[in-house]
Amino acid sequence: MKKHICDRLETLRKMMKEKGVMYYYITTADYHNSEYADDYFKEREFMSGFTGSNGNLLIEEDKAGLWTDGRYFIQAEKELEGTGITLFRMAEEGVPTVTEYLEQNMKDGDVLAFDGRTVNTRLGQQMEEIVEKKQGKILYQIDYVDDIWKERPTRKCNEVFTLDEKICGKTVAEKLDMVRAAMDKKNCQNLVLSKMDDIMWLFNIRGRDVECNPVALSYAVITKENSYLFLQENAVTEEVKSWIKGQPVVLMDYEKIMEFLQQQTWQGAVLLDEGNISYAIYKLVKESAEVIFGDNPTELLKAMKNEVELQMMREVYKKDSLVVCRFMKWLKENIGKIPMTELSAAEYMDHLRKNTEGFIDLSFPTICGYKENAAMMHYQATEDNHKELAPEGMLLIDCGGQYLGGTTDVTRTFALGPVSDEIKVHYTAVAMGMLRLSNAKFLYGCTGRNLDILARGPLWDMNIDYKCGTGHGIGYILNVHEGPQNVRWRFMEGMKEAVLEEGMVLSNEPGVYIADSHGIRTENIMVTKNAEKNGDGQFMCFENLTFAPIDLDLIDTTIMERKDIENLNRYHKKVYEKIAPLMTKEEAAWLKEVTREI
Amino acid sequence: MKKHICDRLETLRKMMKEKGVMYYYITTADYHNSEYADDYFKEREFMSGFTGSNGNLLIEEDKAGLWTDGRYFIQAEKELEGTGITLFRMAEEGVPTVTEYLEQNMKDGDVLAFDGRTVNTRLGQQMEEIVEKKQGKILYQIDYVDDIWKERPTRKCNEVFTLDEKICGKTVAEKLDMVRAAMDKKNCQNLVLSKMDDIMWLFNIRGRDVECNPVALSYAVITKENSYLFLQENAVTEEVKSWIKGQPVVLMDYEKIMEFLQQQTWQGAVLLDEGNISYAIYKLVKESAEVIFGDNPTELLKAMKNEVELQMMREVYKKDSLVVCRFMKWLKENIGKIPMTELSAAEYMDHLRKNTEGFIDLSFPTICGYKENAAMMHYQATEDNHKELAPEGMLLIDCGGQYLGGTTDVTRTFALGPVSDEIKVHYTAVAMGMLRLSNAKFLYGCTGRNLDILARGPLWDMNIDYKCGTGHGIGYILNVHEGPQNVRWRFMEGMKEAVLEEGMVLSNEPGVYIADSHGIRTENIMVTKNAEKNGDGQFMCFENLTFAPIDLDLIDTTIMERKDIENLNRYHKKVYEKIAPLMTKEEAAWLKEVTREI
Repeated sequence: MKKHICDRLETLRKMMKEKGVMYYYITTADYHNSEYADDYFKEREFMSGFTGSNGNLLIEEDKAGLWTDGRYFIQAEKELEGTGITLFRMAEEGVPTVTEYLEQNMKDGDVLAFDGRTVNTRLGQQMEEIVEKKQGKILYQIDYVDDIWKERPTRKCNEVFTLDEKICGKTVAEKLDMVRAAMDKKNCQNLVLSKMDDIMWLFNIRGRDVECNPVALSYAVITKENSYLFLQENAVTEEVKSWIKGQPVVLMDYEKIMEFLQQQTWQGAVLLDEGNISYAIYKLVKESAEVIFGDNPTELLKAMKNEVELQMMREVYKKDSLVVCRFMKWLKENIGKIPMTELSAAEYMDHLRKNTEGFIDLSFPTICGYKENAAMMHYQATEDNHKELAPEGMLLIDCGGQYLGGTTDVTRTFALGPVSDEIKVHYTAVAMGMLRLSNAKFLYGCTGRNLDILARGPLWDMNIDYKCGTGHGIGYILNVHEGPQNVRWRFMEGMKEAVLEEGMVLSNEPGVYIADSHGIRTENIMVTKNAEKNGDGQFMCFENLTFAPIDLDLIDTTIMERKDIENLNRYHKKVYEKIAPLMTKEEAAWLKEVTREI
Repeated sequence: MKKHICDRLETLRKMMKEKGVMYYYITTADYHNSEYADDYFKEREFMSGFTGSNGNLLIEEDKAGLWTDGRYFIQAEKELEGTGITLFRMAEEGVPTVTEYLEQNMKDGDVLAFDGRTVNTRLGQQMEEIVEKKQGKILYQIDYVDDIWKERPTRKCNEVFTLDEKICGKTVAEKLDMVRAAMDKKNCQNLVLSKMDDIMWLFNIRGRDVECNPVALSYAVITKENSYLFLQENAVTEEVKSWIKGQPVVLMDYEKIMEFLQQQTWQGAVLLDEGNISYAIYKLVKESAEVIFGDNPTELLKAMKNEVELQMMREVYKKDSLVVCRFMKWLKENIGKIPMTELSAAEYMDHLRKNTEGFIDLSFPTICGYKENAAMMHYQATEDNHKELAPEGMLLIDCGGQYLGGTTDVTRTFALGPVSDEIKVHYTAVAMGMLRLSNAKFLYGCTGRNLDILARGPLWDMNIDYKCGTGHGIGYILNVHEGPQNVRWRFMEGMKEAVLEEGMVLSNEPGVYIADSHGIRTENIMVTKNAEKNGDGQFMCFENLTFAPIDLDLIDTTIMERKDIENLNRYHKKVYEKIAPLMTKEEAAWLKEVTREI
């Protein structure tokens, strides 16, 4: 029995009983619907003991359920043991969703409660619908866990820093014009933003309130006349304060957002992104304004990098690729000679990156998996649990940095010694797919769904698939994952798709994951570019940003088409041209060899 | 001035005035939302003089407008001259749609009238919304043109014929079970069908009321207990009548459908396909039942051919491919020796097909274009306007038949003599794309949007596109175009996509169309099949049905990958294996040569 969890649940249930609450719902989200949440927001982990990155907890008087996805079934079972919490395996047949569960179990007049700041509007409205049918009630302006969590970590409040226009390519005023033009098109005169990376982009600022994501806790409200930026008071230095004074921006206190929304006299409709804005904000705004749902205009504008940003990224990616080249050289030359583990290899990579000019932070914790460990897509080596490296098999390393000039993300898989023929075939097919996608020519109007088969084709031909997307968008000195674009083939009814626009940056990362055997991923980052325009339309192509060798020790040319070999040789030639000038003579000679024509 | 058109418009306007109607709307549709309508239904052509296959006419007291698409702008301008009818160029910037026009122009209290049998429910509802805003009125149970059109052709009423279960693979009872199961899933107890090919499929019957489409004018109503089939009385022979008596089907008179719907006491909700069912039917049903909108379940069931149908098709496609082979031999051996025109070549092809066992009809009028004429996708040679063929350039021929055992559709482009190197490159790229798509391996869940780039890729790489889909579904002894599946890359907000299911038959027809120069299309028909199933999912592939040579005189191997050459050789080997046994010795020797390995 996990007594601390049971005690917490008991305390919560007492509070529920006092207030007549039958269902208390706790999500994983922070107030900003972030992909990664800071420790302060981990109420669900505190109440259940489950540490996974996705999971929602529903507590009733006599039972409780935790919903999580397939990545975490085994871990959740273990962590929930002795808590009395039932595991609901999401997407498995016969397992209801939280809303379905509520629909089936709520009784007439029942009260559902949650912290409305941590539930997005779409989900909140679904729950509202169910509760209405049951003639029940929702309490959403509460946070019971805060009262129970005596040693709750303090909320992060790191200093905000500003980025020069020379780095951002556009002033805040110019960006506000673009956002207001997009609002006009949707007939909205107001916009409330809570997505932190959107806010950072719009105001040319960055923060350090979330690990690996250079964002600050913040809100923003844009009207036709004014723009209000809500930051934590202690996060704003005098320097930043005076910089903001020179911008068409009113600085507000992060704590005052709800009060502000309540007192605001709205002129015209308010645009809210129902998937991102919290239910608490939606309810407040709805009281006094017409709400129009739609994507945050900032999302698309942020995704289409401008020429200044792209130029900065090109330089940063060269430096970051140099790091990967140096790591590869170190790895290949030292394996079997000095002791190495998954951890020490990752540390060496991080060390190289941290010593690179302009480095701010890692863009995510480095993933470093040897042999069968690489078959687990979310593998993280730990002090307690990691492998020693030996001169055989393959090492997969997925890593990236935040630099003043861009966010990087790169994966390479290297041979440490002999591997099977099957592994070479798999590795070669992955390289073929990655290069086919990065060499794609396509018409404007295509989305990632049209292109995914180029990357997967060589694997599908062998009856192999990888259970993740081929590509995601990447921020600029921002989150390593951002939308709206991606490369994913699967169709879902009613889903949104983003046309690939010039300047959109995408990852291109096909892989092979054979459980208990080996894992391969080769990941480059690329920019969408306009190519020829003629009577048939605007053709598009990609420009590579990543320049790191593909391991020729793992290539089996017999399965490659002529074009695949040309693609590889052309890519390697560019790797040498871009990276050798940054290297010592000895390093350059090594690079020449590992990027040789085949 | 076109006096006859002006007179007709004047008469109509008098009738409008008498009834207080300000707008009278005439569509191209028959009562069944068919792709091709019989002459009886051509009210719009009668009233406007415009003969194109797409166009809608809106008549007001002092003006009139015709809406048509880009294919017909030039033709419509010519045909509308002197009628006083304004041409509205659909999809051009600044040109309102009919509904936008009505919204902008209708005054409060205005009356809009149309024949509700020729307007689908979706459009009808849009108009309803506009008219409601204007506090106006819609009259939809009228047909003024019928009163004016003294020499209106009689409505087709050809004899219906039945198909044996041995040809259909399933009995009517089995199909009704499948349809009712699909209705159950949508919580509908009733279904009204007006789509003729769906009705033919469901009841294992065929007709001849539309040119090239073996369908009969018909309606159907399916309830939990009964199924009612509405056919024209004179179309039903005693033989068919007695066959129907043995089926779980009540035969009804086509003329009585409205009466029946009015008097029906519905048990449960009625499923209607809003894009296909007429507004007149919808309004009737809505009076006395709950209407649920959704696709006709028959559409998907019909598209997934069963094994009996597929076996019949395989045999029919061999016979039809033999026709194409014989045509190719005749063409290649006789060009320059005997006089030939686009018309006489098409006639020869039709002649070969008509003499094939099981032939019923052509599946569409044969398209035969020489040189630059082939660049016009909808080209039709006529007695007055066609080209002579000479031993140079290329001939494109697109044709197909209705057989007792399947519907065919095939396109080949042949060299009649010397062609430019550019043409060879274009032809080879088309062949590469067609073969890459037909050799695709993909995961279950893919739609045509995921695969289209395989066919277009070789052309996109050259900055060339074709402005049409790559593939459409094909009926079984039914319409040459059917849904829901297709191969089209372009995304449109809110559009439906059909997952490629086992048994779905698709065309695969990439092309190059260079205005005033040349046109190339190579079209095979293929069946979607299950391939290997493993932990990564159910893989899918295609089986070819069409076996006709790709013209090696037009192939430039220098641009082909190794796999493309293998694809072509493997395909040609199969062509020889399947078709040579049906040939004379001399023909087989010729086929051997034109399908030789390269």
